[in-house]
Parts: sequence; C-alpha cells; structure tokens
Amino acid sequence: MKAFVMKKIGEVGWVEKPVPECGPLDALVKPIALAPCTSDVHTVWEGAVGERTNLTLGHEGVGQVYEVGSLVKDFKPGDKVIIPAITPDWNSLAAQAGYSMHSGGILGGWKFSNVADGLFGEIALVNDADGNLAPLPEGLDPADAAMLSDMVPTGFHASELAGVQYGDKVVVIGIGPVGLMGVAGAVLKGASHVYAVGTRPNCIKVAREYGATDIISYKEGPIDEQILAKTGGEGVDRVLIAGGNNDTFAEAVRMLRPGGAIGNVNYLGEGEFIRIPRVDWGVGMGHKTIAGGLMPGGRLRMQKLASLLETGRLDTSKLITHRFEGFDKIEEALMLMKDKPRDLIKPIVMVES
Amino acid sequence: MKAFVMKKIGEVGWVEKPVPECGPLDALVKPIALAPCTSDVHTVWEGAVGERTNLTLGHEGVGQVYEVGSLVKDFKPGDKVIIPAITPDWNSLAAQAGYSMHSGGILGGWKFSNVADGLFGEIALVNDADGNLAPLPEGLDPADAAMLSDMVPTGFHASELAGVQYGDKVVVIGIGPVGLMGVAGAVLKGASHVYAVGTRPNCIKVAREYGATDIISYKEGPIDEQILAKTGGEGVDRVLIAGGNNDTFAEAVRMLRPGGAIGNVNYLGEGEFIRIPRVDWGVGMGHKTIAGGLMPGGRLRMQKLASLLETGRLDTSKLITHRFEGFDKIEEALMLMKDKPRDLIKPIVMVES
Amino acid sequence: MKAFVMKKIGEVGWVEKPVPECGPLDALVKPIALAPCTSDVHTVWEGAVGERTNLTLGHEGVGQVYEVGSLVKDFKPGDKVIIPAITPDWNSLAAQAGYSMHSGGILGGWKFSNVADGLFGEIALVNDADGNLAPLPEGLDPADAAMLSDMVPTGFHASELAGVQYGDKVVVIGIGPVGLMGVAGAVLKGASHVYAVGTRPNCIKVAREYGATDIISYKEGPIDEQILAKTGGEGVDRVLIAGGNNDTFAEAVRMLRPGGAIGNVNYLGEGEFIRIPRVDWGVGMGHKTIAGGLMPGGRLRMQKLASLLETGRLDTSKLITHRFEGFDKIEEALMLMKDKPRDLIKPIVMVES
Amino acid sequence: MKAFVMKKIGEVGWVEKPVPECGPLDALVKPIALAPCTSDVHTVWEGAVGERTNLTLGHEGVGQVYEVGSLVKDFKPGDKVIIPAITPDWNSLAAQAGYSMHSGGILGGWKFSNVADGLFGEIALVNDADGNLAPLPEGLDPADAAMLSDMVPTGFHASELAGVQYGDKVVVIGIGPVGLMGVAGAVLKGASHVYAVGTRPNCIKVAREYGATDIISYKEGPIDEQILAKTGGEGVDRVLIAGGNNDTFAEAVRMLRPGGAIGNVNYLGEGEFIRIPRVDWGVGMGHKTIAGGLMPGGRLRMQKLASLLETGRLDTSKLITHRFEGFDKIEEALMLMKDKPRDLIKPIVMVES
Repeated sequence: MKAFVMKKIGEVGWVEKPVPECGPLDALVKPIALAPCTSDVHTVWEGAVGERTNLTLGHEGVGQVYEVGSLVKDFKPGDKVIIPAITPDWNSLAAQAGYSMHSGGILGGWKFSNVADGLFGEIALVNDADGNLAPLPEGLDPADAAMLSDMVPTGFHASELAGVQYGDKVVVIGIGPVGLMGVAGAVLKGASHVYAVGTRPNCIKVAREYGATDIISYKEGPIDEQILAKTGGEGVDRVLIAGGNNDTFAEAVRMLRPGGAIGNVNYLGEGEFIRIPRVDWGVGMGHKTIAGGLMPGGRLRMQKLASLLETGRLDTSKLITHRFEGFDKIEEALMLMKDKPRDLIKPIVMVES
Repeated sequence: MKAFVMKKIGEVGWVEKPVPECGPLDALVKPIALAPCTSDVHTVWEGAVGERTNLTLGHEGVGQVYEVGSLVKDFKPGDKVIIPAITPDWNSLAAQAGYSMHSGGILGGWKFSNVADGLFGEIALVNDADGNLAPLPEGLDPADAAMLSDMVPTGFHASELAGVQYGDKVVVIGIGPVGLMGVAGAVLKGASHVYAVGTRPNCIKVAREYGATDIISYKEGPIDEQILAKTGGEGVDRVLIAGGNNDTFAEAVRMLRPGGAIGNVNYLGEGEFIRIPRVDWGVGMGHKTIAGGLMPGGRLRMQKLASLLETGRLDTSKLITHRFEGFDKIEEALMLMKDKPRDLIKPIVMVES
Repeated sequence: MKAFVMKKIGEVGWVEKPVPECGPLDALVKPIALAPCTSDVHTVWEGAVGERTNLTLGHEGVGQVYEVGSLVKDFKPGDKVIIPAITPDWNSLAAQAGYSMHSGGILGGWKFSNVADGLFGEIALVNDADGNLAPLPEGLDPADAAMLSDMVPTGFHASELAGVQYGDKVVVIGIGPVGLMGVAGAVLKGASHVYAVGTRPNCIKVAREYGATDIISYKEGPIDEQILAKTGGEGVDRVLIAGGNNDTFAEAVRMLRPGGAIGNVNYLGEGEFIRIPRVDWGVGMGHKTIAGGLMPGGRLRMQKLASLLETGRLDTSKLITHRFEGFDKIEEALMLMKDKPRDLIKPIVMVES
Repeated sequence: MKAFVMKKIGEVGWVEKPVPECGPLDALVKPIALAPCTSDVHTVWEGAVGERTNLTLGHEGVGQVYEVGSLVKDFKPGDKVIIPAITPDWNSLAAQAGYSMHSGGILGGWKFSNVADGLFGEIALVNDADGNLAPLPEGLDPADAAMLSDMVPTGFHASELAGVQYGDKVVVIGIGPVGLMGVAGAVLKGASHVYAVGTRPNCIKVAREYGATDIISYKEGPIDEQILAKTGGEGVDRVLIAGGNNDTFAEAVRMLRPGGAIGNVNYLGEGEFIRIPRVDWGVGMGHKTIAGGLMPGGRLRMQKLASLLETGRLDTSKLITHRFEGFDKIEEALMLMKDKPRDLIKPIVMVES
C-alpha cells in the first residue's frame, strides 16, 4: 500500500509499505477524510520529536473500518469511524489515574505520526479499536468530523485546564484552528468576554463568529498591557494559550487575576525554559495556576464532542478553508500547512473510499 | 412609604411603613424594575415559610441607591444597581466554607421577603451593600437585568450542582422561568442534547430558543421511560430539576447514567420525604449523586452573570411576557403569577424612578 | 480443580470444576490468602444478586500467578499479586468517564462471585491482568494485603465520595470492617472529630485505635439527636454510611450541616425506597449532597493503597480477628461471617501455595 | 502603649504608639503568645515588602480580647482568641470568588506587619473580628495554638494546592516549620511516601516524627535525581515547596509524574523569573500543574485547624524549640529567627496577660 511519510528530518515522500498486521485488539481503517496538522510540519521540518525513518504522517481523520482483531467487539468492517489523534492504552496506570494521554510515559498516548505509523496511508492501524474509535454519527460530514480528531479536543481542553466558569473573562492567545476551538470552547463553558489574540484577517473573522468579543493584536503593543487596560487593571480570570512561544507565559501571568488559571495546549517547540515572572506571580503565592496538557483522546471523548456537532452547538466547517479531493493530495495539503498562506485555517483531503 | 406586603398567610395588601433605617453597612434602594416570583406566591398562599405579619414581599429587582451607610465604600446615592435575591452575611462561617447562601443557618442568606422586608416597598434596605449590590452595567435594560436577581442564578446553579461537561446529555425538568434558565445554563456549560420536560406552548417555544433539542411531555407517558428510550436505554449524564414535586427525584434517578448527577433547584413545598428508588440508585453504589441547593447570591455572582448579558451570551428578555408600568401594578403582577395564565413566563413591573 | 460455590440461593458447597481457560489478556491465579465478605453472605442467603448456579464465591484475596495470557506484559507465573474485588474493563466508556466500576453497566466492574467465578477456587481467572492485578510488595503480609481487595478501598471511598477536608467533623455509621476502614480513611483525609456509630465492644475498641474520637450507640437514643447534641446543634460536615439500612439516610441528612455531604458505601439490600426528609434536606436547597458508590478497583488503586501499608500509615492487621489455615477452611470462615460472633471483625484463610 | 516595630529597612526597635482606635467591626486584642516569623526577617532585613516606617511587626499569636466594635456579635472582652496571619475582607469580590487571601488585591488579605500594624504591640487591632478571630478552645496550650496563625495553615495549604490523594508519593522541599507542617499536612491527606528535603538534624528528627519516610539532602547530589532514583524513574505525584528558591521549581518539575502537581507556599523573595524546564514540563502538555498560593486565613480556617489539635491529630508543640517569657523578649526571639541557630525550629514568646 502507499503511504505518505517523513523519510527523515526535513524530507517527506511517498513509499510503498505492507498493509499493517491487525492485532487482536486493533482495527485497520481506510481513510475517508484526512487533515494535516501543524505538528506534522514541526515533526518533519523542525525535528520536534526527533529523527524518524519512513514514518507515516497524519493523526487527524475519519475512515472506514477495513478489518478488526479477534477481540474487538463494537466495530466491524465497513463501519465509518472518527479516529482521535490520541489513542491511549486504557488499562495503563496513567489512564487509571485519569491521565490516559500519558499512558506509557509522558505524552505516550500520542502514537500516530510519533511512535507509530499515522493515518496518511491507504490503510492505517488503530490500537484498541473498542477504546479508541468512535462511530461516525449518521448525517455528520466526514470533513467536519475530522476536526474532532485533534483541533476540537485540543482547543476545548484549554478551557478544561483553566476551569472556565460562568461569566469569566478569558483571553485566548493564538487563533489558528486550535485557538479558534479555544474560543468556541470557552464560550461553551460560559465565558463572557473573550479576548482573542491574533492578526490574520480570516482568523479574526472566524474568531468573532465563534464568540470572541475583542480582538487583540500584538502590533498595538504588549498584549498584557492591552488586556489590563481593557479590564480596568484587574486582569482576566483565565488565559488559554494556543499559540505564541515560551515568553507568552510571562504575559499570561501578568494579565491574570489572583485565583485565575492558565490553560496551555500549545506545543512548545524550542528553548530551554518557560519563565514565570516572580512578582507578577504573587511572589509564589498569588494563586495563579499554570496548567498545560495534551488533549484527552479515545472513544468517549470523540463521542461527546461529536454530539456537539450533531446538536448544532459547534460548527467546525468554519475551520476548513481548503478542500482537496484524492488521497494523493495529502502532500499538497501538508505543504499548504507548511507555507501557511494568509487565508489558511485548515485544509482537508477527501479520499474516495 | 408604601409597601406591598403579606399581611398574613393567604392575604396581601398595601401598608404604610416607615423608611427603613440604614445601618453602617447597608444601603437603601428605590426600585426601578421589580418582578414577583413564584416563591412569593408560595409564601403568601401556601404559607411555605410560615406565618408572617406585614412582611414586604419581593426579592427580584433593579433599583437606584437612595442612601448608604457610613462604612459603605463602593456605592453612593444615584447609582443604579442589581439586587440579588440572596444577600449573605459574607463573614459568616458558612460563607467562609463556600456556602454563603446558608449564612446564619440553612437558607439563611435568603432574607428578602422571608426574614426581612423585601423589595416591594418604595424604599428597600439591602444588607452589606458592598458585598451584595452590583452596579447595573451601562446599556443593560433594567427589566432584563432584574432576571439576574433570581431566575438566572437559580437556573444556572442547577448545572453547577450537576457538573455539566462538554457533550453531556442533560434533562431539564420544568420549563418555567427557572427551568428555561436551566436550559440556557446547560447549553452554556457545554451540554449537547438537552431534553426539556414541559407542556406549555409558549414555554416550549422559548425552551427551543434557549437550546432544548427535545421536548418531553408527561402526557406521552412516564418521562423516565421516554428519556431511556431516547438514549438507547443508557440514560443521561445530568438531570436538572426545576419543577415537579418530590416524586420527580425517583424519575430522575431512573433516567440517570451511573456516574451522573442530579442538580435540584426546585423549592420542595410539601410532603415529608423525597424517595430514592433503591435498585435504580444502584443499591446505594451507582454513583448517581443527588445535589440540591439554593442559588449563590451576592455581588460577584450578579456581576459575572450580568457580563453574560453584556456580551450577548444570554438574552433574558425572552422570559418577560408581561410588562407593567407603575409601582402600584405590583399587586396585579403578583396575582398574574398566582393565576399563571397559559402564556405567562415572567411579568415585570417598571417603576418611575 | 475444587471450588467453593453457591449452588443456589441458600446453599453452598464444594464442586469440581475445570481449570478456567486463560484468555489473551487474562491471568490464572492460585490463592495465598482469601477472605469471605458479608456480601458473599448476602449473595448466598439473601439472594441479593439473584439466582446463581454453582458460582464460585469470593472476591478478596492475594495469590500467586499460575498462567498469563499471550498479551499480558507485566506479570508472569510465580508473581505474588493482590487481587481487587472490582476488576473493570478499562477501555469501556464508563471507565473513560472515570467510573470504571460501572464498566459494562451499573456495578458492572464487580465480576467475581457476581457475574463470574470468584476467588474461592484452587485456580481463579482474573480479567485484564495488567490492568487489574497489583504486585504484592516485598515484605507485606498476604493476610494484611488481602484487606486491600475490598475492605480498605470500600471504606476509604466513603471519604472520597463525601469529600472530607482538614478539620471536618465526620460521622461513620457502622463499624464492621468497612466502617472501620471508613474511620481510618476519614482520619487519613484530615478529619478531626470522628463519631463512630456502633455497639460491638471489639469493634469499638478497634474504632478508637483507628481514630474515632466518640462512640455513638443507637441504644442511647436516635443517633442524629446525639450527634446534634454533641455539635451544639450544628451538625457535622460529612456522614459516611457503612452500615444500617435505608432509614439511615434520613438520620444522616438530619445530622448534616448545609454544605455537607453523605458518602454511602453500604450495599442496600432491601426495601423499595431510600427516604430523604424534605425539610431537613433544606426543602431541596440545603446543599446536603447525597453520594454513594461502589469502590474503585483495578491495579493502580491496589498499588496506592498498598503503599499506605508499606509506609505504616495504615495497619489492616487489626481487622483480622480469626485466622484459618488451609483452602478447605473457606467454608468455616464463610459460616463465621454468616453467624457473626460478637468478637468477629474479619476472618482470613491462609492457603499453602 | 509599647510596640516592637520595623523602623525602616534594616532597623527594628521599640516605640510608643497610641492604642489603636477600634472600628465598629474590629477588635482590640492583648497578646498571650506571640511568635516571630521568617517573613518578619525578610520584611525588615531584606525589604521584601518595601520600605515601612515604624510598622509594628508580627502576625502569629494568641491573645485576649480587650475591646470590640459596636457591630461585633460573637466576641467580648476577656475572650481568648487565635489570630490568623491572614485577615481578609470577607465581602470583597476576591473572597466571594473563593480567594479571600487576595481581597483588595493580590496578597491583600495579608495585613498584619505588611500594610497594617502587626501583633507585636501591647494591644493589636484585628479587622472584622467576627470573621477573623477564632475562640481558643478550652484546654489548648496558647503556644501550640499560636502555630495555627501561619505555620499550620501555610504548610497544610501546600497539600491543598497540590491535591494530595490516598497513597500519593509526595516530596516536601524545605523542613523549617512550614515545611514540617507540609509533611504533617501531606500525611493527613493520605500520602504514603513522604520525601522530605533538608539537612538540619533537629528538623530531620521532627520531620520523621511528623511522618517523613525518607530524608533527602542536596549534599548527596541533585534532589530531582535522588527522587527519580528512589521512584524507579517514575517521579512522584506531588511536590510541596516550602523552601529553596526560584530554581527549586525546575527540580520540582523534573521529579514530578505527568498528572502530578506542585504546591508552592514559599515566599519567593528575589530574582526576576521562576524557570520551568520546557522538555521536562512535557513541552507544555505534560499535565504537571504548577500552583502556588498564600494560606487561607480567617476564622473558619482557624477553627478547623484548631480541631485537629483538640483531637490529637496534630501536635504543634514539636515545632517550638525556644520559649521566652515576657513581652519584651520579642526582640530576642526575632533575632533568633534572624540568626537561625542550628537547633531552631520556632521560638515562642509568652506574655503575661
């Protein structure tokens, strides 16, 4: 079968691979809709997870079950399924402790396109099918549903980490697709004022549609100063970080009210340290909690988030700005992610299945 | 000054009272918008809180500060303010424990029209002005804002008690004004399917506008059976109770999934016991948590909920079906509450101030 | 192999059974230490879980691995292991939601001596060995460790359900072995006053050793009145229920402070309803939360609780009042549980392995 | 009256001051037992809170009520009381949000010896007497009870911030009096292994008595490496920081398991930034939560912690290594704190009252 892979750091390409062998708990899935992710770009061109050889890329998608292992109970060939980016080992100690995304070690639930072949093959292997696949609900557009693999659960997790409550003032830093889902997720947890930080016009437009009340641009000055000015010096209740870099945390701490919290879902790709400003952090005693975490994956998460699409609470179609037809367009879609044209939010590749 | 009072159980009327004396922490407030509450009806005609003599009724309203005590720092005469139905003693042990509504004993934060004169006087006394009044935000309609005194915080508290999460299936029992705010509050905490239980056409229409996905009528059979049928026998994640009676809890337990929770905000007016069905409650071990609580009141609560109106997350104007002009219309408005015509959700009385 | 079974309701006995077949995720375990449980008594003589035919009894024990399935990674024959009473399906939706004990339906994590053969066979099958067995720590007495299967996690769960905090006043109703672990668990969550309700002298002695500050006997009058008298009418912060019957909940609600919580871990064996007194429950709005749940099982739970034994925080040896030697003494031990002599807390059967 | 003050940065001394004027909500209190705090040392000799002129020092003590304001309901002259170091404004928005220690701004609940005269005067003023004083329970040694003002609530708060659970492995960094209460507080929340980091022999001895299972010395190598070695490379569940400096956080992150949390109660006195190591923090997604906060103060907190002394759960007398008699010995006690002799944990000054 054909697979689109990272050949080595800095190089991608198509290779021929054998169809994966389906273990007793696994499923093989053929893609219906696939999306490349900024983290694929980091993985290939920045070597973010280290060197890899002919690793199949991709961890966002919807597909059709092709084969299931002997112990799989809930799925059968032909079933249409949502595949989460994070596919934990559910009986691990980490999962039993409530942190399935760290099963088998920190970030260990992230297997696709990291420690195992991803979804950009003609057939992909999914570990623990019963625990990790979710049925694609009748009537859901597979392209929209593919946003549930990573963009929605990651963006929404920021609000979970920060504990957004009714009437909270929330800053969302970064309005790429994850940040936009950060905005939508904050609104769906009861935020009132949502200050979205970004500059790209298309993203700003969609951020407003998802519920951002204010747009903050770093071009107008330090963002913490802008937020403090807008809140009468009091700061906000929560800061959701879905973009920026290590220095973003210092700004976040400064704009945060005592008793507030930071929820980070941004992959921090470089630098040795995140720096927390001592005085603004209340000399260690300001109750400004700093939390960050990989999205929870697995089947239940997919099902619950899919129900938000089914009931019209969330419309992920706004995220999809570029649509490709055909499995072989994956390369083009990924290069688009790499080049980030100004009007891009998220591309999708539809595969005949 | 004139006040509209409960003369005794079963009898209301207008009386002349002295203007209240303003203590050092208190404020006197003149009404701008007032709303009667079903609990005023219970208090008068069912004797729900016991006998009272010439107790001024009313605990929902927006007003203008007339006088403040010597220790009040944040308000001055002329300020327009939202008055919460629950006005706790903030330095009490109960408030320090996080349960301000029970300051001074169970339900002790409920003072107006219960243990102290309420808001249906030409001038009303509010205890702990700095802690309990909230500035009326610029541009907010006082009628809409008066819904923040009780309807919104009570309805929203049901979701807080039940712990609604992203993608939860939620039943809301009762779609009077509190139940409607239960629907809106569940949606603003991330509920997907919201099954609203009620029959009155006007309420059904508004319930759908607030986000109910399904309407359940007891006329179609036992509601727990209908919910179980709609959820493939699995039940829902949360049941919010804003209507019904003591037997409602048994239905709620039956339609609840293990690990789910009930959030009750309904005043249970009669009967000796609420009955929990043993087997459906998992013989005591089903993790179906039963919670019920009086709304949190006070200033911060008002400010945070008001910010939801300011940012357009919530539109309380849909609740107001009947509008009266003039302080002396309070009686008519209350009688409307008592008679509950079919098209009534909530009346408001606008007072020239 | 020999197994001690429930032949039918009201009848136990020894039968010959084939050695269970070990599935790919399973382990077969030979017993080292076994304990009968009051719930075995309920199962047999009260038919609490319904009719069963030749069901092997027992769900508390420590054993030695005899065989493991092909997919088991962390255990091998010869390993000594603690076996939890509750052995969930970890990839189920219920487990993903944090309620592993309800995997596959309410109470579905309870398999041994309920829906699957229990531990009172010469060889027992444990589902999902990696997820459900815990290594027996070096130096731990197997008899003491067998108390970790059910008594400790069940008793401790009461405090988890009720949310005991530093300095809380806590009532523990029932001081059988689970209630005694309720006392110990409350102390290990920071309770100050622990009012233990019971009358058997041996249990009272041990309750004091585990940290009970007061002993309450129903013989001295209604226990809620006694507790209210001892707390100046204010009631306690938490009530842990590990005994009594359906009417215990009404007493518990009466002795509970607004904002407090009930944590029930008692199996409620009969009666149609638990009755909650309306007025004492604050007419539905008193924030007196009623929670009840089956213990969390599985490997992590065993490991964490075992660490409390290893570090001397908890001494389970006080629970064991009767010690038998030899597999064939299981019957005698169970009959002891049934007859409940006055000095009994918990029997153990040591098996040569 | 006489008061022991900070005359300016670097200088202390005795001055004559007028007896404070007692506002309507206040109380005046004469000292019975007083303790100096390391933070008094920071305040005076490091200028930690900035310049002050003739500010009365001290925020730990037990006293006798001398006068109460006209609105005080629960106290009268002659009552013996525990005075918390943190005395919030309970009706503030911060307190209503659950963060009373930040009432009136970050750390704003800390008034004594910071923004208001402290307790080292012949008479001290306590704001909001009903909300902030706690009756000294009958039979409690005032010296022991004085440890409740700051040492106990601060040390215990570390475990609250980090969310210690049954069977957690916990590191406590620093074993001065706060760190020792960190050890005791972790044990009273169910910690199993408690790794205490420190080197002073007297503190080590007492740490073991409070429940430390292992003592870690930085002299034996980097403490994170020692902890990782002791936990098989897995790290611990919680790290409580009660000593060290800004660099301690990097060590803490390294020794923490994904899903774990840091609870800081150490006043960070200098340096611009706390540095979080990016990779060890899971590139921002490791669910290693960093929390830090000033102790909760006020009356309820004092009462609940006092109940732990009353019931023998906690023995604070082990903290007190030096005892002085007479109000004028405050200076000597403070200098002892400054000089930190090797056998010092905490001094107390008993005042004839």
